[in-house]
Amino acid sequence: MIRIGIYGYGNLGRGIESAISQNSDMELVAVFTRRDPASLKINSDARVMSASDALSMVGKIDVMIICGGSATDLPIQTPELARHFNVIDSFDTHAKIPEHFDNVDASAKAGSHTAMISVGWDPGMFSLNRMYAGAILPEGKDYTFWGKGVSQGHSDAIRRIDGVADAKQYTIPVDEALTSVRSGSNPELTTRQKHTRECFVVAKEGADLARIENEIKTMPNYFADYDTTVHFISKDELDKNHSGIPHGGFVIRSGVTGNGNKHIIEYSLKLDSNPEFTASVIVAYARAVARLASEGSFGCKTVFDIAPAYLSPKSSAQLRKELL
Amino acid sequence: MIRIGIYGYGNLGRGIESAISQNSDMELVAVFTRRDPASLKINSDARVMSASDALSMVGKIDVMIICGGSATDLPIQTPELARHFNVIDSFDTHAKIPEHFDNVDASAKAGSHTAMISVGWDPGMFSLNRMYAGAILPEGKDYTFWGKGVSQGHSDAIRRIDGVADAKQYTIPVDEALTSVRSGSNPELTTRQKHTRECFVVAKEGADLARIENEIKTMPNYFADYDTTVHFISKDELDKNHSGIPHGGFVIRSGVTGNGNKHIIEYSLKLDSNPEFTASVIVAYARAVARLASEGSFGCKTVFDIAPAYLSPKSSAQLRKELL
Repeated sequence: MIRIGIYGYGNLGRGIESAISQNSDMELVAVFTRRDPASLKINSDARVMSASDALSMVGKIDVMIICGGSATDLPIQTPELARHFNVIDSFDTHAKIPEHFDNVDASAKAGSHTAMISVGWDPGMFSLNRMYAGAILPEGKDYTFWGKGVSQGHSDAIRRIDGVADAKQYTIPVDEALTSVRSGSNPELTTRQKHTRECFVVAKEGADLARIENEIKTMPNYFADYDTTVHFISKDELDKNHSGIPHGGFVIRSGVTGNGNKHIIEYSLKLDSNPEFTASVIVAYARAVARLASEGSFGCKTVFDIAPAYLSPKSSAQLRKELL
Repeated sequence: MIRIGIYGYGNLGRGIESAISQNSDMELVAVFTRRDPASLKINSDARVMSASDALSMVGKIDVMIICGGSATDLPIQTPELARHFNVIDSFDTHAKIPEHFDNVDASAKAGSHTAMISVGWDPGMFSLNRMYAGAILPEGKDYTFWGKGVSQGHSDAIRRIDGVADAKQYTIPVDEALTSVRSGSNPELTTRQKHTRECFVVAKEGADLARIENEIKTMPNYFADYDTTVHFISKDELDKNHSGIPHGGFVIRSGVTGNGNKHIIEYSLKLDSNPEFTASVIVAYARAVARLASEGSFGCKTVFDIAPAYLSPKSSAQLRKELL
């Protein structure tokens, strides 16, 4: 059995807990929280412990899955914990990945542990598919589309506008752009041509709706470069119809071989629950981390460094027989 | 530079030659043929040599790409050559993969070489995607659809019918079946519900068309279990509109997490040239084989055993920065 610890118990942590229950070679040993452990109700029989007591579990946890946020938690937590545990995180600030990798790598090597960063679907499975497709079709072009799905960052940005009580934002890929990419015509697409943004907003009583709509649509970086639709709805409607966290997207490589023969490689995800799917990817890679650690392969890894077979509970002979 | 040999120069061998020209870290050293080398015209400056002289090139070729057929060539050629070279093949008789693996593995280990079998898209990239998706969503169901594409085996079967001068057969996935799978409803689909078969047949003068059509549609294993359409066309039409070798398909996993949240993972290929795409996959993995050999990782491998980064000409740091 692979003994797992969950460090941080939000949406992602709960998703990990649920994913572990689908994998019979894994066991959730403990959930670590910065809240008062006595106040935290979890969905399994695992121990709930204070994050500050984590080191008392050294030797009792094979892989610590760190479920903090990328902005301020993971840059500190992952290097710290990698000194004492095999770890895995879902660090997703793309621009800071090289720096995070170096910090975690140094720390994991110092502690003789295996660490893995930026696991999930983007970064994660999308990155992997960009890499495979690019290696197979060196002469080609990559396209990534996101959605339809809820962007937490954009929803938060709307909520910070004066007069907004609550909000949910969907990122939606533009069908015409997808069709054009799939045709192999290798179009140059602007930000506006690739995605639209749809916002469901609950306004506070008496708020100026026209002003809110204008503030959303003209917000730099978040909305100004997109065709944005704003719907004002009631809190009840928001809770009833927009409480899920769906997401997904498309990674497409359009390439050419030989005498102008076109090829389209497409990987797509349609996810009812973004955090539960991300958790499922992480849990499969936690298996790989445990195995690599037991082989003495220390330091920091990413999805690019790990042979696919390490993710599966099946033996290599079984994989060849059943899946090749 | 990775020095490549091509062993067998049919459609696949020509595809390999073309793919090598897209990869600046590779060099085609020699093409080996069982025909008279003097009679073989190739599309590059590589040497053309007799297959029987292959061993004279030991030490001058880093990876030998074996382009024979799976029925009778590869079961003999790959184990033989793996004793003297690092090798890669596209063995695609699914049921015999375990046996072929064992033979090649023993031979590669005896010769201290790295070998890789069953590389391409199915087996190959489709297998890989079945494996990743199954590891991520343990509670779910796999679907593979092929096409729209030309099946060489089915075209050959039609050509063997009395009165048929030439023929091309397309395998076509049924749209309704794809839609139903993508909905997450996990349907049980019969052979007939998944694919249709469309045949373009050139009949010999005076042949009984009704008899030919009936023989096609009732042919056991090949057509009897499918809805099959037969079009009789002229040789000119066949050459003009059906000379390509397109193919492709879909690997879909439909799974569930948590409280009934559905997820769809889909990988699809749309290929103008089946042999050129297969060749492109093989050439990327030839890079991996060369690297593994230089690390002393001997024996037989499959796509499951090879970390993705080995396929790319980019460094690990570059991959993390640009693609993660």
